[in-house]
Amino acid sequence: MDDVFAIEGGHVLTPEFDVIEANVLVDREAGEVIEVGPDVTAEETLDATDSLVMPGLVNAHTHVAMTLLRGYADDKPLDAWLQEDIWPVEAELTPEDIRVGTELGLVEFIKNGITGFADSYFEVGEIAAATEQSGLRANLCHAFISVGKDNEGARADAQEGLDIAREFDGAADGRITTALMPHSLTTVETEYLEEFIPQAREAGVPLHFHANETQNEVDPLVDDHGVRPLEYADDLGMLTDQDFLAHCVHVDETEIELLAETGASVIHCPASNMKLASGIAPIQEMLDTGVNVGLGTDGAASNNDLDLFDEIRDAAMIGKLARGDARDVAAESAVRMATEGSAEAIGLPVGQIEAGGTADIAVVDFDAPHLTPVHDFVSHLAYAVRGSDVRHTVCDGEILMADGEVQTLDEAAVKQRASEAAEALVDRAE
Amino acid sequence: MDDVFAIEGGHVLTPEFDVIEANVLVDREAGEVIEVGPDVTAEETLDATDSLVMPGLVNAHTHVAMTLLRGYADDKPLDAWLQEDIWPVEAELTPEDIRVGTELGLVEFIKNGITGFADSYFEVGEIAAATEQSGLRANLCHAFISVGKDNEGARADAQEGLDIAREFDGAADGRITTALMPHSLTTVETEYLEEFIPQAREAGVPLHFHANETQNEVDPLVDDHGVRPLEYADDLGMLTDQDFLAHCVHVDETEIELLAETGASVIHCPASNMKLASGIAPIQEMLDTGVNVGLGTDGAASNNDLDLFDEIRDAAMIGKLARGDARDVAAESAVRMATEGSAEAIGLPVGQIEAGGTADIAVVDFDAPHLTPVHDFVSHLAYAVRGSDVRHTVCDGEILMADGEVQTLDEAAVKQRASEAAEALVDRAE
Repeated sequence: MDDVFAIEGGHVLTPEFDVIEANVLVDREAGEVIEVGPDVTAEETLDATDSLVMPGLVNAHTHVAMTLLRGYADDKPLDAWLQEDIWPVEAELTPEDIRVGTELGLVEFIKNGITGFADSYFEVGEIAAATEQSGLRANLCHAFISVGKDNEGARADAQEGLDIAREFDGAADGRITTALMPHSLTTVETEYLEEFIPQAREAGVPLHFHANETQNEVDPLVDDHGVRPLEYADDLGMLTDQDFLAHCVHVDETEIELLAETGASVIHCPASNMKLASGIAPIQEMLDTGVNVGLGTDGAASNNDLDLFDEIRDAAMIGKLARGDARDVAAESAVRMATEGSAEAIGLPVGQIEAGGTADIAVVDFDAPHLTPVHDFVSHLAYAVRGSDVRHTVCDGEILMADGEVQTLDEAAVKQRASEAAEALVDRAE
Repeated sequence: MDDVFAIEGGHVLTPEFDVIEANVLVDREAGEVIEVGPDVTAEETLDATDSLVMPGLVNAHTHVAMTLLRGYADDKPLDAWLQEDIWPVEAELTPEDIRVGTELGLVEFIKNGITGFADSYFEVGEIAAATEQSGLRANLCHAFISVGKDNEGARADAQEGLDIAREFDGAADGRITTALMPHSLTTVETEYLEEFIPQAREAGVPLHFHANETQNEVDPLVDDHGVRPLEYADDLGMLTDQDFLAHCVHVDETEIELLAETGASVIHCPASNMKLASGIAPIQEMLDTGVNVGLGTDGAASNNDLDLFDEIRDAAMIGKLARGDARDVAAESAVRMATEGSAEAIGLPVGQIEAGGTADIAVVDFDAPHLTPVHDFVSHLAYAVRGSDVRHTVCDGEILMADGEVQTLDEAAVKQRASEAAEALVDRAE
């Protein structure tokens, strides 16, 4: 294996969102782009004819092992869906299930041009091991909950979240970082937030939590504390420029300003918010106010796939419905959310197709009827490209997929094991 | 070429929406399914291992030649988009442009498992010729407008619409039918509706028109006529069980009841309605009231692709946002809209995978990470399948695509010609 390879014959999306014709020379060891230019070449090449070389996508909020529950239950309100379907099955998940469900999701990520993700689930050791094998980058955490537990149980769960954040931070040669995840502002009581958040700060890990996903999550908190949920979070020191909040569907103007002031990021999950009927997050208002916004698929059970190109399109589409203005959440905004917005939010490097930039790259094939003609590459990325148009995926200078073939995981074997695991899981649960 | 072929080794979606393991024997000449069963076979086969054999999708409202304008202008309000971008370019379209734009769209349809469509545009002769060559079914029409024209011009345009409806009805061995299309209730004045609609009835062709797409289209009509737009249409005899209305975003309860009573169909175009910020049509209310609803992509310029699996997902997704209820527009409802709902609306046969059924068939490959595991085939059709998962497309007993290779049009040549035509078109317009 050579030290360098060249991505040849394509167009390149620059950090300024210009599109130029150029080759890209990548340094494997450094995980960096060495040079971008019309004449750079190497012995080993990835063909990019009729293709666009762009930063890898970053899926900033997911529960990757939930692939095993893809399509298991749909078309139900959130509470009934969780209580009747999802939780009973999740209670039967073994560490081996989590491992193969994660591998399945990571294969899907790689095939869809995703090079980094932020996950929260349980059995994080299994998720970290699969991530290391896959070659992807991730920010991982164990979500902890206090509601419905006694003090000992609640503290043990939070401590596990903290221990995991400490243990895996910097794993996989630094490709894995971690966060502390209090599940949400309503499922973790104040005393545990007060106790554990300072410890996360001490450990130097960010907070990742669900916030203001449904109105049902907002109202009781306002009743109990007399302030909006994000004011409450801010009072507890939960909003810094390291932290990222999933959903934020039901936020008011004050909360949007608080996000902008503190630099905390929002992870917009439009597909999940539609499928669970949670509502439309006010994304254009957030962007106008200076909030950093990333995109996430959420788990496969509420999506039902892990193709972030769907979320780019969804964000642009429902972004226009929110205020009835077709100018809102324009194509470039939506694509930027899925790349630099997500990467900045979860603290991972974003791909930059320029000398010295991180070599986290997706190569998208534009030679397809649904991408013909090409008046505007970025418009197609937002409104017409599908994950299946991705030809090559590179992360940290390593080729994870070449010509549609995943290199680091055995796609056929993973599908087979995942199908078997899902069948056995449902048998146990029903 | 044998008289029969068998689709072997797959699962079959029955008219009752059950999924069974079976082979499907097709009679080419009759365009019909001869038999469905575990042991039927033939010398010539299409492999359906790990795949679902389902009715072909029907795209019930589109402007197929607009593929040439895909991504030409986005993120603008409807009026500005039409006046500043779309109309100036459309004014430069030649018959050759329409032909190649149509061929590009038809290639896309076939690749996405679409076997029938309803189109309205101009140069219908070119569209009919491309449709005949493609092997697809279609209901075609020339949209006429009176507003902004003198009486002579308005009558000539309407007469062209009528002449075309008469000329092409029954073309391509009956695969092509036609409609009369008064463009909309606000762009064609009452006198022309009164004159030409009875002639459409006499010619035995249905009406296809845009209705209640935006609030801007509703308010002036209410002001002028003192009734809701669909009451006005009903008074003019425009609502029968042959007729189909695109959009119907802004309809009230009375209008929904009128649709149900008259049997007129609604063509829901969720992607277009989002992208142009038109709003969310009350689809679950329509279904509950007994209205027949089909699905359409609208033109590629407001979508930006022609993958009806996107519309199935969009319909289910925004259907839940409309009333904040995750039960609304469930997976099966959305899939039925794209098949039997659309087919019934535009008067084309729907594929039925049973003995004696029409052989309009899409074979969808489920052996993919994003479709693993399979808890529920129909859930995957709604929430996870993409057009690129379609392996084989059959229409009227003819194999239009086998293993991803379009048989009736030259995909590579069409893409090349379409790219060149689009470039020259924009050069002329700018």
